[in-house]
Amino acid sequence: MMELFFKPKSVAVIGASGTPGKLGYVIVNNIKGSDFSGDVYPVNPKSDEILGYRVYKSVLEIPGEVDLVITALPTPKLTVMTMEACAEKGVKAVIIESAGFAEMGGDGKVYQEQIVEIAKKNNIRVMGPNCSGIVSRNIVTSIYPMTKKVPNGNVVLIGQSGLLAAGMASDIVENESLNIKQVCSIGNKCDVNENDLLEYFGAQDDVDVISMYLETISDGRNLTKIAKKVAAEKPVIFLSGGRTEAGAKAAMSHTGSIASNAKIVEAAVKQTGMIMADDFTELKDFAKVFSTQPLPKGNRIAVITLAGSVGVNVSDLCASHGLELPKLTEETTEKLKDMFDTPVSNPVDLYFSVTKIGFTKTLETTFPDAFRDDNIDAAVLILAGFEYTQEAVQKKIIQKIVQDVGKPVVVCMIVGYNKYKNVIMDEMGKELPVFPSLISGVKALSKLCEYGIRQQKQSA
Amino acid sequence: MMELFFKPKSVAVIGASGTPGKLGYVIVNNIKGSDFSGDVYPVNPKSDEILGYRVYKSVLEIPGEVDLVITALPTPKLTVMTMEACAEKGVKAVIIESAGFAEMGGDGKVYQEQIVEIAKKNNIRVMGPNCSGIVSRNIVTSIYPMTKKVPNGNVVLIGQSGLLAAGMASDIVENESLNIKQVCSIGNKCDVNENDLLEYFGAQDDVDVISMYLETISDGRNLTKIAKKVAAEKPVIFLSGGRTEAGAKAAMSHTGSIASNAKIVEAAVKQTGMIMADDFTELKDFAKVFSTQPLPKGNRIAVITLAGSVGVNVSDLCASHGLELPKLTEETTEKLKDMFDTPVSNPVDLYFSVTKIGFTKTLETTFPDAFRDDNIDAAVLILAGFEYTQEAVQKKIIQKIVQDVGKPVVVCMIVGYNKYKNVIMDEMGKELPVFPSLISGVKALSKLCEYGIRQQKQSA
Repeated sequence: MMELFFKPKSVAVIGASGTPGKLGYVIVNNIKGSDFSGDVYPVNPKSDEILGYRVYKSVLEIPGEVDLVITALPTPKLTVMTMEACAEKGVKAVIIESAGFAEMGGDGKVYQEQIVEIAKKNNIRVMGPNCSGIVSRNIVTSIYPMTKKVPNGNVVLIGQSGLLAAGMASDIVENESLNIKQVCSIGNKCDVNENDLLEYFGAQDDVDVISMYLETISDGRNLTKIAKKVAAEKPVIFLSGGRTEAGAKAAMSHTGSIASNAKIVEAAVKQTGMIMADDFTELKDFAKVFSTQPLPKGNRIAVITLAGSVGVNVSDLCASHGLELPKLTEETTEKLKDMFDTPVSNPVDLYFSVTKIGFTKTLETTFPDAFRDDNIDAAVLILAGFEYTQEAVQKKIIQKIVQDVGKPVVVCMIVGYNKYKNVIMDEMGKELPVFPSLISGVKALSKLCEYGIRQQKQSA
Repeated sequence: MMELFFKPKSVAVIGASGTPGKLGYVIVNNIKGSDFSGDVYPVNPKSDEILGYRVYKSVLEIPGEVDLVITALPTPKLTVMTMEACAEKGVKAVIIESAGFAEMGGDGKVYQEQIVEIAKKNNIRVMGPNCSGIVSRNIVTSIYPMTKKVPNGNVVLIGQSGLLAAGMASDIVENESLNIKQVCSIGNKCDVNENDLLEYFGAQDDVDVISMYLETISDGRNLTKIAKKVAAEKPVIFLSGGRTEAGAKAAMSHTGSIASNAKIVEAAVKQTGMIMADDFTELKDFAKVFSTQPLPKGNRIAVITLAGSVGVNVSDLCASHGLELPKLTEETTEKLKDMFDTPVSNPVDLYFSVTKIGFTKTLETTFPDAFRDDNIDAAVLILAGFEYTQEAVQKKIIQKIVQDVGKPVVVCMIVGYNKYKNVIMDEMGKELPVFPSLISGVKALSKLCEYGIRQQKQSA
């Protein structure tokens, strides 16, 4: 049934418009710009043609079957009428993007109840209302203009946030290197909720990471059950909106639902094995690390640095995020001693190695020698400037080492990040998580270790 | 005496070189590229002229007085000999940039002791060894090439980190909008230490913010006394390197000194009124907020947003960082009610106002109306995309409102930051702290509130 939302063969847009800028125009144009290859039926009683598609006066007039209906109508009343037409037409999946329902209280709540009633009676699944729908390679139903094609990657973002599948998704696709497959905004969740999506994406083999933002929990018991099952197989990153009293109040005025109690949510999340994120940036950052790096077997970190002070700072941050910095084995110490003027230790300060054999060669030999050490599960690699690292970046040396050694790395670029951001992201950031600050890199790695250790225990 | 380091009238570079790339070349070239208007004396027994300056065989050969000597010599022994020559010449300030001293242990430690002895006997103040010296508008002694002039701003960064006054300083000047005045790397602190600098910059009226990174405390009792005095007058942001066991071990192998105990440092810092930072990015970020924003009188925050979900997330983050989200006064609620379709609340969701009067007008009227509210001390302003905010950014509306209302703002730009980073920084980031993530913005504001409340109590 959920397939109808993500892989429909035909789609109708109710409230389609030929006027650029209007929501009903953006939706049709987004579908046109995606790889969608099925039939597109714009519905508008006053038009004949929109963006090259023949327009129908109503959903009932459409000749063939309609897998998915997307509505962007100006009033809740018109939306209810459309639901009735969809029932008559035999439509089984509807995305209602319009606002003005339960989140507004009063009549809006009544209209939403009517929609649910029609849906139940006719076995229609409804996403929304008050949502941005779906952003994917296959189909884009968002009300925000997409200028590039979605990469068809391995990361899914789902959430109770219009912005997520609108401006944020567009920004990720256009300007960030996160390899997303689907972004899905579920709005008021009058029917389709997080449990449906978690179950659906949990079963998709080409989805490796799920990031989820929720302000309300539709069915806590079921979520716990499903999340536990899915998180045992693939990482589920979770951002809880309204986990403090202030946040809960904000969520209430925003979605019209009472937000979930912070402590209950956090305890439940921990129990399920989901990974907690603290803001939208972490929701993306953690997904980046999980979707590009192998899982570590433990939390023993090598801090690889070119600048002593930064190594000290990262050591402190590792300790405060539950990560350990073990000594390297005697074997490694012996192997590396010619590359150091001081005793080999962890943080591994590459300075002397660089002065002896240059930066690229150091990354190619000294770094993997330390990284392979049996005491080490993962590494934080601190690059202090693009100029020095340019050759290594272009030769994709770090990516090759990660693949070869089979352990994860996070890269913190603390000098030159702003200047070389685009180059770094194009040449390194597609396959490696690159962070502009030490805190963000260490925190993301600590989450990867948390999950890796859990998986390790599970398989033991 | 410290003036000789920062405002010398004449400077000699021992180990100066005419070969581009060599440290002794970079230093002379950096001085040449600064606004330094006094006499420059490169010293090198084998050259006659370097970068247009006449070269002297030794410091003793220099005809006039020498206020400051900078040394970048290949061996510690040569450095000791130079110290003796400096004593004979009557030099009173020396920056020793070379490494190979106490941080290496063994002989290095002995050489450093010899330097201290000569310095004490002859009343010479020594910065270093193992440091990058000074980066300022007036003079640049760093071993890292500076391509732009230092802005002569109101922020000073000092620390036990070569990178700070080298690559990091260069990067800040070239690619970031932090308004720095001086960056000073003090290395092994054989003589000049954090207390000297804190006292010196504390007394400078044109220095508004001091950010400091330390791995060791030279004289804890004195630091507490001086920091307390300085922090009562201007914000001192403090990053402690080696505050965990792992970090302390790292610091030990890096500087050769035993790092300070975490708990003692943190308790002492709290007592002095300094602001704790957790990494180098925060050292800069907090300085940005403190150097551009007025101090708030309390911790009551208005969260101003265009997207509900992001407002919820920021509310949670505020609560976890000790910030409150009060209700707006009835007066404000009444004044604003026509701009909202839902009850006016905090977070203030500008969505309806934008649909009614547009984004720029909303920022010009609805935002300041909420911001002026008597229940509000400061605001987090979440901008969801540059396209919408372009006009407001160009008209510098937010800056004008901050000035007019007299309360601080942090701006979180969560969509379009990467794409428009340069425009945002050029047009908005010079006078406003703009953050790419919600966590970083909220945390920085919480530090401003912490300090503001402290100052408020102090003056009461």
